[in-house]
Amino acid sequence: MNIALDMMGGDYAPLEAVKGISLFLAEGDKNTTLTLIGDKAIVEALLLEHKIPTDSITLVHASEVIGMQEHPTKALREKPQSSIARGFELLASGKTDAFISAGNTGAMMVGSLFSIKAIEGVTRPTIGAYIPRENGKLGLLVDAGINSDCKPENLAQFATLGSLYAEHILGYPNPKVGLINLGEEEGKGNLLTQATYPLLKENKHINFIGNIEGRDVLIDKADVMVCEGFTGNVVLKLAESIYDLIQRRGIQDEHFERFNFEVYGGVPVLGVAKPVVIGHGISHALAFKNMILTAERMIAKDLMQKMKDIFSSQA
Amino acid sequence: MNIALDMMGGDYAPLEAVKGISLFLAEGDKNTTLTLIGDKAIVEALLLEHKIPTDSITLVHASEVIGMQEHPTKALREKPQSSIARGFELLASGKTDAFISAGNTGAMMVGSLFSIKAIEGVTRPTIGAYIPRENGKLGLLVDAGINSDCKPENLAQFATLGSLYAEHILGYPNPKVGLINLGEEEGKGNLLTQATYPLLKENKHINFIGNIEGRDVLIDKADVMVCEGFTGNVVLKLAESIYDLIQRRGIQDEHFERFNFEVYGGVPVLGVAKPVVIGHGISHALAFKNMILTAERMIAKDLMQKMKDIFSSQA
Repeated sequence: MNIALDMMGGDYAPLEAVKGISLFLAEGDKNTTLTLIGDKAIVEALLLEHKIPTDSITLVHASEVIGMQEHPTKALREKPQSSIARGFELLASGKTDAFISAGNTGAMMVGSLFSIKAIEGVTRPTIGAYIPRENGKLGLLVDAGINSDCKPENLAQFATLGSLYAEHILGYPNPKVGLINLGEEEGKGNLLTQATYPLLKENKHINFIGNIEGRDVLIDKADVMVCEGFTGNVVLKLAESIYDLIQRRGIQDEHFERFNFEVYGGVPVLGVAKPVVIGHGISHALAFKNMILTAERMIAKDLMQKMKDIFSSQA
Repeated sequence: MNIALDMMGGDYAPLEAVKGISLFLAEGDKNTTLTLIGDKAIVEALLLEHKIPTDSITLVHASEVIGMQEHPTKALREKPQSSIARGFELLASGKTDAFISAGNTGAMMVGSLFSIKAIEGVTRPTIGAYIPRENGKLGLLVDAGINSDCKPENLAQFATLGSLYAEHILGYPNPKVGLINLGEEEGKGNLLTQATYPLLKENKHINFIGNIEGRDVLIDKADVMVCEGFTGNVVLKLAESIYDLIQRRGIQDEHFERFNFEVYGGVPVLGVAKPVVIGHGISHALAFKNMILTAERMIAKDLMQKMKDIFSSQA
């Protein structure tokens, strides 16, 4: 398989991306080849400097970069030679099997939706986020901020997509899916969650355990936590801020180390036809390595086909 | 002034309420008299046992109790002799100046809305919650879970009510009001927050500092944090769960001690015509003392009149 990596995306590009590749390759025998997209001269020099063997690496030059604050649609249109635009071009044409970037999230979403397109039957592709839990495993929060106004049907699809990801990529058999709500009992909630509950209950593709509350987010009650992107964004950023608080208080604790979101790398766009992984802007080497491993696993498990099978059977 | 206290409300009633009264009276000279509502024989015995002087105390017998899980409207109708029903009766008739209970939240809200009624011009009374912050002061999250589906106008009113409370009861001059949102820039948000932003910007009664994100909730960026009750409930319960996590990890830290929500007691219903304070079910002695102090301050500062002045000027 071939995985393409945007070398220019993220606050610490391209250095941390190069270091991440080094970590990835150090793990031993790989059938995976990498396509690195970015400023060829700079990337080449860094690969040399870090003594990275280039026999399984192809460099693709991109003369432009989309900045973190640029308008996604406008930037993609006006910068066809940018690393993100070129990455989607390669993925759409089948020259690579996955595309990873820690760059402009909006541009990555627009590229996913317009170059790669949603899986038939999926009305709103989504992005999840990892939530550290006390049992040492990761929970998946979905949607993590892309779709801020949702219909019950959207949340039901997030649940299916998130559950498939948790099962095949995170490796949880029969993952527990919870609906983030303001009370535990069925019937509680705002209009959206009240209307979503019965859809999740009827959804044969998930193991729905019912409502979960704010206090359940950091424990291991549910493996997949479903909400619209507004709540997801607030919950994720609040959870991220706990790490800063712990650091400022000078507390050393193994579990709270897991709140260092820099190590998790990105989570894939769920519901588009090919593997696209969007990293956090603050991604460091370990995050880049983890994103490559995620993409590798998505391809190996043929996750997209599993999603297509379910959504085509519902059509 | 006279403050009425429901002795039968909360998980640790009436013992912790009695202990709270003891703490309150130990603070010295008081012009405040208390009306204690509950099972007279039991309360009398506990007062004696805790050597509480009864010269400034009136006991009012209530032969019934509304349980924590009872249906609010039904319970209030079917239990006119309950401590909550009697408390609202005394408050509505002017026999007491404030009413405090750590009992059934729903019954307290229904009582507030139907016996005491909203201040003219306030469409949705609300309840706030305290959020501990690193600077040692408390932030106010409003709405904390009562109004889960809101219009922009509701949020604008929560902002005004919360700001008055923060200024006069928490003692912050010109309190900073932030709108909880998924991004900092104006224009970001879901449909609700996008429509609320301009209303807060125009609101002359508040010091609006703009959008705040999930990561800003636990720091001192805003004194008053405005959101609908769904987000508020999830944020509050997530924040509460941090204390449990810290305890389970065996971490000792002064700041994280502030995440022990048991000590804060309740926050008042904002936007109803008389002082009503609803406590957390898990309220202990200190929480009861703090609730009495809050009610005392609301009366002393004539907070309700300040709210009435602003809302009548907008009519």
